[in-house]
Amino acid sequence: MAHLLSASCPLNISCSKTSPKSLKQSSSAFPTSLTLRTSIQPFKTLSLNKNNTKKLFSVRATTLQQPGTKPDSTSGQTSGEQPRPTRVMVIGGDGYCGWATSLHLSNKNYEVAIVDNLVRRHFDDQLGLDSLTPISSIHDRIRRWRSLTQKDINLYIGDVCDFEFLSEAFTSFKPDAVVHFGEQRSAPYSMIDRSRALYTQQNNVLGTLNVLFAIKEFSEDCHLVKLGTMGEYGTPNIDIEEGYITITHNGRTDTLPYPKQASSFYHLSKVHDSNNIAFTCKAWGIRATDLNQGVVYGVRTAETEMHEELYNRFDYDGIFGTALNRFCVQAAVGHPLTVYGKGGQTRGYLDIRDTVQCVELAISNPAKRGEFRVFNQFTEQFSVNQLASLVTKAGEKLGIEVQTISVPNPRVEAEEHYYNAKHMKLIELGLEPHLLSDSLLDSLLNFAVQFKDRVDTKQIMPSVSWRKIGAKPKTVSA
Amino acid sequence: MAHLLSASCPLNISCSKTSPKSLKQSSSAFPTSLTLRTSIQPFKTLSLNKNNTKKLFSVRATTLQQPGTKPDSTSGQTSGEQPRPTRVMVIGGDGYCGWATSLHLSNKNYEVAIVDNLVRRHFDDQLGLDSLTPISSIHDRIRRWRSLTQKDINLYIGDVCDFEFLSEAFTSFKPDAVVHFGEQRSAPYSMIDRSRALYTQQNNVLGTLNVLFAIKEFSEDCHLVKLGTMGEYGTPNIDIEEGYITITHNGRTDTLPYPKQASSFYHLSKVHDSNNIAFTCKAWGIRATDLNQGVVYGVRTAETEMHEELYNRFDYDGIFGTALNRFCVQAAVGHPLTVYGKGGQTRGYLDIRDTVQCVELAISNPAKRGEFRVFNQFTEQFSVNQLASLVTKAGEKLGIEVQTISVPNPRVEAEEHYYNAKHMKLIELGLEPHLLSDSLLDSLLNFAVQFKDRVDTKQIMPSVSWRKIGAKPKTVSA
Repeated sequence: MAHLLSASCPLNISCSKTSPKSLKQSSSAFPTSLTLRTSIQPFKTLSLNKNNTKKLFSVRATTLQQPGTKPDSTSGQTSGEQPRPTRVMVIGGDGYCGWATSLHLSNKNYEVAIVDNLVRRHFDDQLGLDSLTPISSIHDRIRRWRSLTQKDINLYIGDVCDFEFLSEAFTSFKPDAVVHFGEQRSAPYSMIDRSRALYTQQNNVLGTLNVLFAIKEFSEDCHLVKLGTMGEYGTPNIDIEEGYITITHNGRTDTLPYPKQASSFYHLSKVHDSNNIAFTCKAWGIRATDLNQGVVYGVRTAETEMHEELYNRFDYDGIFGTALNRFCVQAAVGHPLTVYGKGGQTRGYLDIRDTVQCVELAISNPAKRGEFRVFNQFTEQFSVNQLASLVTKAGEKLGIEVQTISVPNPRVEAEEHYYNAKHMKLIELGLEPHLLSDSLLDSLLNFAVQFKDRVDTKQIMPSVSWRKIGAKPKTVSA
Repeated sequence: MAHLLSASCPLNISCSKTSPKSLKQSSSAFPTSLTLRTSIQPFKTLSLNKNNTKKLFSVRATTLQQPGTKPDSTSGQTSGEQPRPTRVMVIGGDGYCGWATSLHLSNKNYEVAIVDNLVRRHFDDQLGLDSLTPISSIHDRIRRWRSLTQKDINLYIGDVCDFEFLSEAFTSFKPDAVVHFGEQRSAPYSMIDRSRALYTQQNNVLGTLNVLFAIKEFSEDCHLVKLGTMGEYGTPNIDIEEGYITITHNGRTDTLPYPKQASSFYHLSKVHDSNNIAFTCKAWGIRATDLNQGVVYGVRTAETEMHEELYNRFDYDGIFGTALNRFCVQAAVGHPLTVYGKGGQTRGYLDIRDTVQCVELAISNPAKRGEFRVFNQFTEQFSVNQLASLVTKAGEKLGIEVQTISVPNPRVEAEEHYYNAKHMKLIELGLEPHLLSDSLLDSLLNFAVQFKDRVDTKQIMPSVSWRKIGAKPKTVSA
């Protein structure tokens, strides 16, 4: 049983490794029914006071560090004379990309610590949303991983906006690299109302500043691998480069940060982060990699499919669901695919199996001291109309008739535009992309069909308008 | 006597216009002694709880709106079919640029409301700093202005980060334009320690977001005139344009936001603001002008010199003092001019009399709905070495021997670089610059000599290091 502590207790108390009796052992394949949802009785975890958001998530716990789990030297590449990074802190390690990454790194014999305030689960509670896949508590996830692999993952439950907590996590774990997924990551969420807009920028910007200060103070050689977004660039009428562009103007030339044109308070928060991080690289010698990630699809990785308790979350709702995941769920339940506006919106996409590869490539090839390195992290470009067409064709193979409708675009964005974004740097480091054409049926549509009885169709349509956002707090009725 | 209210009382209670007996009437020239400082007994104003910074400054008050002070139609220009803006809210109207601007606009018959939390005075208290000029309380300032001109200035004391307060200010004052100076405006302050760095970004970014939401919610035609800084651009090796640059790249062309390279947490906060504002112009149709201001020098304006109680603040210390103001004070007290590093750092400068002109030009020629307009607001470029040389020569004329020393640069910045920044848009609107050569002796050096007995020489040297900033809170000993 996990020993969970109030904030006034000493930190880093160990959890025993006894598997709870209520955990259902199952094969490593995906379940074919929904019994999982009711058969698991997750432990009561933290008693959160929802009326006091400022003080939320200050409780801390960590699992026992497994002796003898030091990483071997078989994975990753070294960068010059840098010792190979072995200790990786994954901030936001309970989230969609973060959980998959944490398991991947642990599997590759990195010593992993997850830092997470679990607020992503809290958002679901507040908004009445749920992952398509049933997901276990972070404590159960980590215990299951340990029981299957004999690899331990350290756990620090707390908020990176709380510097006292973050300091404790840094000084006790001593990371060589920090992967920072720990931000409010939904554009629609940031456009619900004023308080969510401000929360998003405050949480993301100040949290990242705290991470930068923690690196400077406690671990100045630590490599920051920060999740940015391709959305920082917007849709300029020229090619998108990786972070920088060389400009010749009035006869003089300089290489400057690529101009940013973000189009939600969330995307803007990532632009702010990028600017802050770039400054600290220059002023303090921080080593940082900004991973400007495209839209992630899929849910299965080699590690998450090992056991149902390791399953990753899969969001299909109008707030947290990304375009392709949502389309697959819509196809599975017979809901028309909802193309926003004209559907010419083109973006970069990648399989979550490539997210975890990319992060490991960045860690194992660290940025130099003082370097602010930007990688565009995606593998293929599609317009929304192209995605709809691909899902329709894949549906046909499964005997599903898929319809597509255009709905009024809740966002403010160009619906027809030039888009050509470079994405060579991760390929040069060794990324071997999974392509959508290979994954669509296997990892996405079949999967959505499998869990279709869990779909709440009320959550599918867009509910947040970029133009109608107001100052008044929005609540969700039952 | 002013009636000042606790937060739980109704808002906008009137102040009577009786001049307090303790106010000393004096000529409109600058004083020749320090008697002002002790002869004024400002009213006790707000009882601030300094232990509770979150709740600070939530007290609200406003002076009585003077009947019959509606603006006439003799000043300002109209922009197309837009009605002439007449009601201007000046956020940060008790500060250095804000106070001079408020008086200038009031004098030009705009109906002015000052919104200020008075935190700039609080910083001085906390850091043991003081303006070279003795400054009166905001209440005395406004009363004196009324008694001299029969013009009233509305006063809302509170924090724009408090949306409830800001909403009340907006709905009761109903501004046509908002001039937003209300930010932590010192780069060194933002680099003192972690908590000041985070405070600066939180206060500036969230405060501006609240202003944007208030405009959208209550006054969507209101023109936001936002003080940015030339420091947002950094020192690129190409010409600096006004906000946007047209780039041809791989055979395609687009006009994009000019790349930013800010070099302090303060400057970064302004970059974040600019990005946020640009998005709301596009998404909500906000009309906004970003005034990327250079380094302001001087203290006298036509209005502030009317009475000693209207004097503006003049900062010469290492935290809030800008380069030229500080040099003049150093010359006056026989302290060597402190050039940081090589002194080749080149920036745009302007006289505070031009700041107030520029703001009025922006207000009277409003941006269109949805337009994010950027003006570079300065009149001349100088390197730090050029400034030192100018002050040395001006000192000679006054019989002062001025020495210059190079001190280790506390900042991280290029000390020798190309710099050529455009600044035509305000000239095209009618700006008639005051040039430094004409102002240096008259408005600056003579003035510093006059008040030299008030100088605290301990405050002159730089005390904040860009590289040494740490996570621990810094306090100042007595």
